[in-house]
Amino acid sequence: MNLQNLMVDSIRQSATNVFSTMLGVELSASEAVVESGTPDSNDGVVSFIGLAGAWVGTGSVSCSPALACRVCSLMLMTDSIAMDEDVLDAVAELTNMIIGNVKNDLEVQLGTLGLSLPTVVFGRNFKTKSAGTTEWTVVRFPWEGETLVVKLCLSPSDKSHSNCHMMGQTCAIDL
Amino acid sequence: MNLQNLMVDSIRQSATNVFSTMLGVELSASEAVVESGTPDSNDGVVSFIGLAGAWVGTGSVSCSPALACRVCSLMLMTDSIAMDEDVLDAVAELTNMIIGNVKNDLEVQLGTLGLSLPTVVFGRNFKTKSAGTTEWTVVRFPWEGETLVVKLCLSPSDKSHSNCHMMGQTCAIDL
Repeated sequence: MNLQNLMVDSIRQSATNVFSTMLGVELSASEAVVESGTPDSNDGVVSFIGLAGAWVGTGSVSCSPALACRVCSLMLMTDSIAMDEDVLDAVAELTNMIIGNVKNDLEVQLGTLGLSLPTVVFGRNFKTKSAGTTEWTVVRFPWEGETLVVKLCLSPSDKSHSNCHMMGQTCAIDL
Repeated sequence: MNLQNLMVDSIRQSATNVFSTMLGVELSASEAVVESGTPDSNDGVVSFIGLAGAWVGTGSVSCSPALACRVCSLMLMTDSIAMDEDVLDAVAELTNMIIGNVKNDLEVQLGTLGLSLPTVVFGRNFKTKSAGTTEWTVVRFPWEGETLVVKLCLSPSDKSHSNCHMMGQTCAIDL
């Protein structure tokens, strides 16, 4: 199986499992696409978690504030209606679990990968850009009339290293 | 030297070196503090890069859009005045270099650490929260009448793993 298909399958399986076991939610069929790595305009909640090893990359989960509150309500069995710290933590936890499982799947093919901790961003009309990203593998899950998006970009360390030469100078660090 | 002091010294040295060699700028004396990991309110440009190994964490660089454009102008020897893709890439590159050097310093004490790729966020009035962060080591560099902030949080993998139990359930992934 090529890496692209492996990523899509793994994201689908991981998100479906995490939603089922952690939130008691059965996600329905998802749509998968490949998108370019130009700056994204965002509205709502977006998380990022880093992958590092022979391959490096970024995993991301994004949704509306309403869906983020719903995730938190189901996870903590409370009634979250405002974007407070608990909601940001719940989205971080969801990201950790979904991308963590994908990492485990990918390691079979790509070798050991380290997983960093997620950062969650919440706001209106903000831009995000992940370095070294030529394309994202994007899977969209319809849920409660909205969409939850799980994305992953991954490239060999060497390739990302070439980004260090954007100024025609050699980069002082090793990636 | 304790880890806290090592992080502060390394951030100072790394940022000073990167600014000097890459941008031709001599940074003046900086102020270092420890801040709690509650959600941060942000305005402007913030980058995040993940560290993963026996210790996991997040490095971050933040500044105003004006300073981000200044970094880009010096790096690419152009005149950047708007927050375009080049400016986001320049901040990503700056983050990569500063935190990459810090990573190299910390590895002497903490063992091998993987470095992911940076994600840069730009907007007005957005919140960010990094999971597993009880405290940030924060170094503020005055530059051109403004402040450029470099932050780092780091904790043993085991500790971050305990965050996976926020719902009293065992986490399916290994960190």
